[in-house]
Amino acid sequence: MADLPKSVRIHEEGPREGFQMEPRPIPTARKIEFIEALSDTGLEQITIASFVNPKKVPGMADAEDIVRGFRPRPGVAYRALWLNEKGFERARTVSNGKLAFEAKIGIYASEKFSMRNNNRNTAQEFEYARNVVRRYREYGVPVNRASVSNAFGCNFQGDIPIATVLDIFTRIFEIAEENSLELKEISLADTMAWATPLSIKRTVGAIRDRYPDMRLNLHLHDTRGMGIANSAAGLEMGVDMFDASVAGLGGCPFAGHKGAAGNVCTEDLAFMCEEMGIETGLDLEKLIDCARLAEDIVGHPLPGSVMKGGSLKRLRHAISQG
Amino acid sequence: MADLPKSVRIHEEGPREGFQMEPRPIPTARKIEFIEALSDTGLEQITIASFVNPKKVPGMADAEDIVRGFRPRPGVAYRALWLNEKGFERARTVSNGKLAFEAKIGIYASEKFSMRNNNRNTAQEFEYARNVVRRYREYGVPVNRASVSNAFGCNFQGDIPIATVLDIFTRIFEIAEENSLELKEISLADTMAWATPLSIKRTVGAIRDRYPDMRLNLHLHDTRGMGIANSAAGLEMGVDMFDASVAGLGGCPFAGHKGAAGNVCTEDLAFMCEEMGIETGLDLEKLIDCARLAEDIVGHPLPGSVMKGGSLKRLRHAISQG
Repeated sequence: MADLPKSVRIHEEGPREGFQMEPRPIPTARKIEFIEALSDTGLEQITIASFVNPKKVPGMADAEDIVRGFRPRPGVAYRALWLNEKGFERARTVSNGKLAFEAKIGIYASEKFSMRNNNRNTAQEFEYARNVVRRYREYGVPVNRASVSNAFGCNFQGDIPIATVLDIFTRIFEIAEENSLELKEISLADTMAWATPLSIKRTVGAIRDRYPDMRLNLHLHDTRGMGIANSAAGLEMGVDMFDASVAGLGGCPFAGHKGAAGNVCTEDLAFMCEEMGIETGLDLEKLIDCARLAEDIVGHPLPGSVMKGGSLKRLRHAISQG
Repeated sequence: MADLPKSVRIHEEGPREGFQMEPRPIPTARKIEFIEALSDTGLEQITIASFVNPKKVPGMADAEDIVRGFRPRPGVAYRALWLNEKGFERARTVSNGKLAFEAKIGIYASEKFSMRNNNRNTAQEFEYARNVVRRYREYGVPVNRASVSNAFGCNFQGDIPIATVLDIFTRIFEIAEENSLELKEISLADTMAWATPLSIKRTVGAIRDRYPDMRLNLHLHDTRGMGIANSAAGLEMGVDMFDASVAGLGGCPFAGHKGAAGNVCTEDLAFMCEEMGIETGLDLEKLIDCARLAEDIVGHPLPGSVMKGGSLKRLRHAISQG
C-alpha cells in the first residue's frame, strides 16, 4: 500500500443528503444544531442544504431558513447544492457571505440517466454545461472541478466502460480550456453503487495516468456495502478527498426506504484512515457524538458502524490506564 | 490487484454465530429451516451449532436437536463448534455421520484474553493445545489447520505485533511436527475487529512470506465496518477462504446489543468477489433469500447491504431485456 496518501480531506454531505429522505419532517432548528455540531469536529467543508424544488423535495423546503439560521465557524466552508439557475439564485440571494460558492463541470456518464433525469442526451448535456459555465463566469463563481456521475455503472444503462469516462473528461477539459478555467480536482461519483475495489482501482488508475497532477475525489454510496472497501481502494490509488455522511445518513434501508443508501459513513472512513496512519484533521469522538445526534434527530438507527463499535483510541487509552 | 485469486470459498457461520446472540428464543424448527435453505446456495461448509454450556449460551441449548433434525445435503460439510472435551463428546455422540470432524490448533494472540477467558497464560495455552491434539489423534479426528485469534488486536491487550503472531505460528507448527500432522491451512481471526486493510496486508503478507504453500483463511468481524474492506485487502494478498455470516448475523447493534457485531456478511462478500471476477460457487439470489429468511427468523433488521440494495446481475438482466 505504498501509494497511501499522508493525509485526506473528507467533505461532509450528511445535512444535505441525510434529512431530505426522511419520511417525517425534521425541524429546522435540529438541522442547524447538527450543522453546528459538525462544525466543531475539524471538518473543513460541509454541504448544508439543497436549493431544489420544494414540491419534489419537501424535506429541503427550509433551505433558506437553514442558511439564515446557522452560526458559521471560521475556517469551515459551507456549501449548498443546486440543480438549476433558479436554485443557484436562491442560494446567492440568501447566502449573505455564509456559503462558499465554487462550481464544477459535471456530466453523467450514463446517457440513459441524463435522458431520464434531465431529458437531455450527452451532447445536449455538454451544451448545457457550456451555458452553465458561462453563467458562473458572469457571476464570478470559480469553476475548478471536473465531475462525472454514475462513473461505474447505472441502473438504467448498466456498466460504464472506462473509455466512456475518459472521453467525458476529455470533453470537460475542452470546455475548461475554451473558458480559460484551471481545473484542480477530478471527482468520480458512484451514484448508484455499482463500483467494487477492482473497478475503483481500474478507473481511478486510468484517470490518474491521464491527469497525474489533478487531485482526485470519490463520492461513494454504500447501497451494496462496498463504500469503505471502495474508499480503501481509492486511497491506494492516491485519492485524498472523499465525500461522506456522518452515520451514513442519506437513505435508510432500516426504515424500509427504497432506493440508494447514503454516502460512505464519515466516521467509519475517518476511523479507517486514522488507523492506517493517514491524517484526517478530524476528531473521531466528536464525529461519533454527531452520528448519535443524527440518530436522535431522525428517530431511528442509522447504518454507521464505529458509532456502535467504538473507537480503538479510546480502548487503547483504557488499556494503558490499566 | 494482480494477486486476486481466481476463486474463493466462503464458509458459512450464520447458524452458529447468529442465533445464539438473539434475546428471544428461536424455535429449533426455524434454525433447521435456515440451515436447509443455506444448503441449497452452493455453500460447501456450514457451521450449524455450538456444543457449549447451555447455561452460558441458552440460545444453543438445542444443539443436539438441530443436528438430529436437519436433512444434510450431499456435498456440504456441516460443522459444529466446541470449546472443551465435553462439547466435543456431545457433538460426537449426536453426529451419526452428519457432522464433519476436522480440528485446528488454535491459540489466542492475546495473553490477557487467554487469562480472562480460559485462565491460562500463553505457555499454558500451548500445553493445553498439545493435550487437545493428542486426544484428537486418539479419536481419529484430522487436525489440519493452524489458527490464531485476536490476531490484529484485543480489547484487553491492545494492538498485536506481527512478530507475536509469527511466533505463535512457529510454536503451532512445532506441535504439528511433534505429532506428524500436516497442516494445510492458516487462519487469522480478527475476533474483536481491530484490523484495517493496511494491517491485514501487513500481517497476511508476513504469514504468506513465511508459509508460501499454506492456504489462508480470514475470520473477520464487522464491528467497526471494516469487514468488506478487510476482505478485499485479504483477497489482494491471496487469501481464498473466508468465514462469513449470511445477512451479517451474529450480533445486532440495531437491537441494542452490546459487544461485537457478526462476521462479515456472506452475500456482500460473495457479491464483491463475483463482481471482481472471482468465482465463489454461490448463488447470490439464493443467498439474498436466505438473508431475508434470517431477518424473518430473528424478527428485526440485520446489517447486510446487498439484501437491501439488490444484486447487479439482476439489474443487468433487466437492462438487457429493455
